[in-house]
Amino acid sequence: MMKALCYSKPNSIAWKSVPKPVIKLPGDVIGKVLATTICGTDLHIVKGHVPESTATAEASPDKGLILGHEGIIQIVETGPSVSKFKQGDVCVVSCITSCGDCYYCAKDIQAHCKKSEGGSGWILGHTIDGTQAEFVRIPFADHSLYKAPQSLSFDSLLMLSDILPTAYEVGVLAGHVKKGDTVAIVGLGPVGLSALISAKALEPAKIIAIDLDDSRLQVAKEMGADELINSSKVDAKQQVHQLTTSDIKDSGVDVAIECVGLPPSFELCEELIAPGGHISNVGVHGSPVQLQLQNLWGKNVSLSTGLVSAYSTQALLDKVLEKKISPEILVTHHFKLDEFEKAYQVFGNAAANKAIKVVLGSDH
Amino acid sequence: MMKALCYSKPNSIAWKSVPKPVIKLPGDVIGKVLATTICGTDLHIVKGHVPESTATAEASPDKGLILGHEGIIQIVETGPSVSKFKQGDVCVVSCITSCGDCYYCAKDIQAHCKKSEGGSGWILGHTIDGTQAEFVRIPFADHSLYKAPQSLSFDSLLMLSDILPTAYEVGVLAGHVKKGDTVAIVGLGPVGLSALISAKALEPAKIIAIDLDDSRLQVAKEMGADELINSSKVDAKQQVHQLTTSDIKDSGVDVAIECVGLPPSFELCEELIAPGGHISNVGVHGSPVQLQLQNLWGKNVSLSTGLVSAYSTQALLDKVLEKKISPEILVTHHFKLDEFEKAYQVFGNAAANKAIKVVLGSDH
Repeated sequence: MMKALCYSKPNSIAWKSVPKPVIKLPGDVIGKVLATTICGTDLHIVKGHVPESTATAEASPDKGLILGHEGIIQIVETGPSVSKFKQGDVCVVSCITSCGDCYYCAKDIQAHCKKSEGGSGWILGHTIDGTQAEFVRIPFADHSLYKAPQSLSFDSLLMLSDILPTAYEVGVLAGHVKKGDTVAIVGLGPVGLSALISAKALEPAKIIAIDLDDSRLQVAKEMGADELINSSKVDAKQQVHQLTTSDIKDSGVDVAIECVGLPPSFELCEELIAPGGHISNVGVHGSPVQLQLQNLWGKNVSLSTGLVSAYSTQALLDKVLEKKISPEILVTHHFKLDEFEKAYQVFGNAAANKAIKVVLGSDH
Repeated sequence: MMKALCYSKPNSIAWKSVPKPVIKLPGDVIGKVLATTICGTDLHIVKGHVPESTATAEASPDKGLILGHEGIIQIVETGPSVSKFKQGDVCVVSCITSCGDCYYCAKDIQAHCKKSEGGSGWILGHTIDGTQAEFVRIPFADHSLYKAPQSLSFDSLLMLSDILPTAYEVGVLAGHVKKGDTVAIVGLGPVGLSALISAKALEPAKIIAIDLDDSRLQVAKEMGADELINSSKVDAKQQVHQLTTSDIKDSGVDVAIECVGLPPSFELCEELIAPGGHISNVGVHGSPVQLQLQNLWGKNVSLSTGLVSAYSTQALLDKVLEKKISPEILVTHHFKLDEFEKAYQVFGNAAANKAIKVVLGSDH
């Protein structure tokens, strides 16, 4: 038996004894969880917004589903077809479990992997048991784990499970951020801050942070934002156009990264974008938005949206090793591995607690 | 003096005597117009929808503005800084006049060229006198003309002025159409048909033509569409999903090219797109559309829109020479150069006359 954080019905989570995971498929590994963290998505599940998480086969009526899709593990057992890892290896768990050879994996859209047990890339703590436990089973380990360099802290490494590749792939890379660009980031929560620190590694000329909350903007400034705009106090569009006025081109930003997931923040991005620019949407949206095509069609703009595929995890790990990105800056709180209920309370009330990312488990 | 088609006020065009153009700037050439055509945009101007076309300096009260941004010319005079062309050269006129060295031209967004006389790429027949005349002045000739190979007909060459690069750049290239893709083209007017013939050169597996009109669909079939859907008669979404069902991936098209410019056709594209797909909008929109971000955010889709920049004209010319694209198929009607009023009547009522593109001037 082991201890794990189990979700059984809306607003009901418990740290309880459940059976330890076992190898089910040849590509599986079993890992001892050294550290893990909580994602905004976990909060959505706990609120009951993700019905498939109770409907899945791994959520037995007495156990529920073990949450969590981020973590650092030490491998204790490997399935017979695992070739890249061995017992004792310390690894970063990717939030995306991918077979590595289906139609979507071949196209680097592992988010839509067709061969994973849940029929998509995100299955851990979603449709199969996750990382918020003492032990976890990781399917397709060869494509879903990354060897953890000893020189990096668990705080750094944990940010590579989900939040950093999400912001980097869906926000920064899809937005084609490049040296010299002006970038606006709308929404400076954990994902927006991750977009900020990973965008900076590509050396844009200027990053403009836009949020409704001064304390979040202050954090963005500490993490490298060049300009701060509180859009509840000033006209953000006008401010951005002042900041980007130039003799050689029209005003506006080259890349606008939406990290909120609400119509007003998306629609603000549409107003900020310069001709030839790109809007990359990272926010999770629950309703349609108005696309002002009558203004945008002639501006040669593009737009992208999507789930993280974690195809960039190794590249990000290299950037962390080169100290171009220091993701440990995102970690604000530490807990022991058995303090999940406390950690969920703190993270569930992130604004009041000034929490960005909370880490559970011991650092090395 | 020369004859030219002049627009002076809404619904008023006349083929009349006006002064011949002269070299104004060092990069200009003066060309004798051998052939030209009429664009849907010209009809918009004639209807009074483009107010800047009467407000411009070149639209004198007695003359009005000479329309037209497509043509084949023979150069009769070159400005002192023109280096690529000489008197006697026969050239394709690009609809985009570009300086070649401003911020936007360097980024291949010549549509937004900052140094052209009108402050944008499309100035001919828009803010300066155009090609529907016996003679025309072409500014920045070195970047705005293409030598016409003798082996190609004027019908073919004329399609390279605007319609083919528009459909190819904004629809096909921005949509990342590639070998093996399934492509939907929504709206099979002249631009949609141009998207069809230029997409085919990239060897997609299947092109699905969608329109409200059977006769347009029939033309699309003759030009190579693999599947036809009349969306006024059947549920286009359901049909497309049937046509794209697969064991290895989700249904939907890899690229949806919008060539209408109305909310329903754009919103249909949103419903047709597969995970990882791209919607490229070529249609000119006059109102906002609903973007169903709640459905699209997790599908890793992208979207683009824009004006033609004509950066692909030489590449298209090469494809026409290699017979990968045969754009003369788009030409349905021929007129003499002085028959503009008749040609405008035929093209202005394109559906009844089964007109796609009309050519004025003699072929060689």
